[in-house]
Amino acid sequence: MSQFDNAAVSAHLSHVRIVMVNTTLPANIGSALRAMKTMGLSRLVLVAPKTYPHPDIDALAAGASDLIAQIEIVETLEQAIQDCHLVFGTSARSRTIPWPLLDARPAAEKSMQAVVQQQQGIAVVFGREDRGLTNEELALANYHVTIPVNTDYGVLNVAQAIQVICYEMRMATLQLIEKTESTEQQMPVTDTESMQWDEPLVTHAQMEQFYPHIEKMLQDIEFLDPKNPRLLPLRLRRLFGRIQLDRMEYHLLRGIFSRVQALTHGTWKKSTDQEDQSDA
Amino acid sequence: MSQFDNAAVSAHLSHVRIVMVNTTLPANIGSALRAMKTMGLSRLVLVAPKTYPHPDIDALAAGASDLIAQIEIVETLEQAIQDCHLVFGTSARSRTIPWPLLDARPAAEKSMQAVVQQQQGIAVVFGREDRGLTNEELALANYHVTIPVNTDYGVLNVAQAIQVICYEMRMATLQLIEKTESTEQQMPVTDTESMQWDEPLVTHAQMEQFYPHIEKMLQDIEFLDPKNPRLLPLRLRRLFGRIQLDRMEYHLLRGIFSRVQALTHGTWKKSTDQEDQSDA
Repeated sequence: MSQFDNAAVSAHLSHVRIVMVNTTLPANIGSALRAMKTMGLSRLVLVAPKTYPHPDIDALAAGASDLIAQIEIVETLEQAIQDCHLVFGTSARSRTIPWPLLDARPAAEKSMQAVVQQQQGIAVVFGREDRGLTNEELALANYHVTIPVNTDYGVLNVAQAIQVICYEMRMATLQLIEKTESTEQQMPVTDTESMQWDEPLVTHAQMEQFYPHIEKMLQDIEFLDPKNPRLLPLRLRRLFGRIQLDRMEYHLLRGIFSRVQALTHGTWKKSTDQEDQSDA
Repeated sequence: MSQFDNAAVSAHLSHVRIVMVNTTLPANIGSALRAMKTMGLSRLVLVAPKTYPHPDIDALAAGASDLIAQIEIVETLEQAIQDCHLVFGTSARSRTIPWPLLDARPAAEKSMQAVVQQQQGIAVVFGREDRGLTNEELALANYHVTIPVNTDYGVLNVAQAIQVICYEMRMATLQLIEKTESTEQQMPVTDTESMQWDEPLVTHAQMEQFYPHIEKMLQDIEFLDPKNPRLLPLRLRRLFGRIQLDRMEYHLLRGIFSRVQALTHGTWKKSTDQEDQSDA
């Protein structure tokens, strides 16, 4: 994802608040801020924190001190979420009565769709370190959200859970923006392997000159028998077809083929035959 | 995702190793183990850790002590990845020359497809806390992998980065299993991206014999100047690193290199010089 739309991503993510209920360890608040800032979120609401303020918050939030200044402190979960449209309660499992339950990824997709399309306010609520959210608190949520973990272990701490949720919120935002842009521009390249390449990739037409060249070179060194090529040409196509050569690589390889051909035709000779064995 | 297939998920994830290079803080090793275990990964390889063992590792890895017992310690990154098929180097940005770069999500999808379909060995390599991986270390990777973060801040520490990567590995595994199950119930589909390969893919260790061979051959035909190789060796690594050669292709290419070398050394001569021009 390019840098230019970082501000747009952060603007969308400013509609998402992270709510921490009755947090005991200030270090977890600091880690949460850092996790948030890394992913572009900015609003943290603390519901009746046990210890606040505390130097551990500043220590763990290294570099995210601007977010510390914006922290909102409230007394009840109700106050923290009252102006939100969509509230997610984090829960290891559903309790009492089944609740609409989403994994982190679809929850983030749903959230950011609501933000991008309707500027809705989103809250993701995290519970106490030792026992999470109460049934009453979970009942205030539209959805419960869970992170699919190793069920034989499954002890993601609150800071780790916030990290994953914030990551998914960012990913969902990036995907929505990409999707919007690609719809607008009809079809720019949406390659999953989007690499910032230094050279343009070669076209199919160029590759159709490449294969005859490598085959001719292999004939010249009698590695390929034109009367009985077997699967060799096909294997070469499969091999080089899955690389997607860039222009420089293409010319590099064709240069090598030409050198080998010149060697076999005697039109090019080594300058330094005596060095042959020394560095073998 | 339901609980019943947790063991299957962990079995797939046992093919993925996390490699930490020259880690300074034992707490980061402990946090990494916890992040891994939460997501079902089990193999941690430490390359020359600065401090090991240390009580902080056990403290931070709370509940993941079985993984501590399985930690492998090696001296070099080469040793850590030699039997792997697909190596990812984590990097905030690409250096020197651009390398195939994947975001965490497609990287995890590519990895777990390779595991589920071909039992490939995967390594994700994380660098030092202060300065990441060196260019030389990054050049050993098939792909570089990056986590899309807030570009105005972007200081994910190594434990957080491992958390996100492990989470994506688990998500990719769950999705593949889900897809397989739903496909099995419907019809056998041939996925274009994932073909049943006829030959096993070569390991990192085999490729470390491949690169010296192609370089020596290029020296023999004076295409590569050993005193001034410029970016050529790096470009070759990048090019062949992203193909993932299978065993037959590997021997095919090395056979071609050897033939060219024999030609330059005069130990092999063409049988049919007179045909040279006729089919040019």
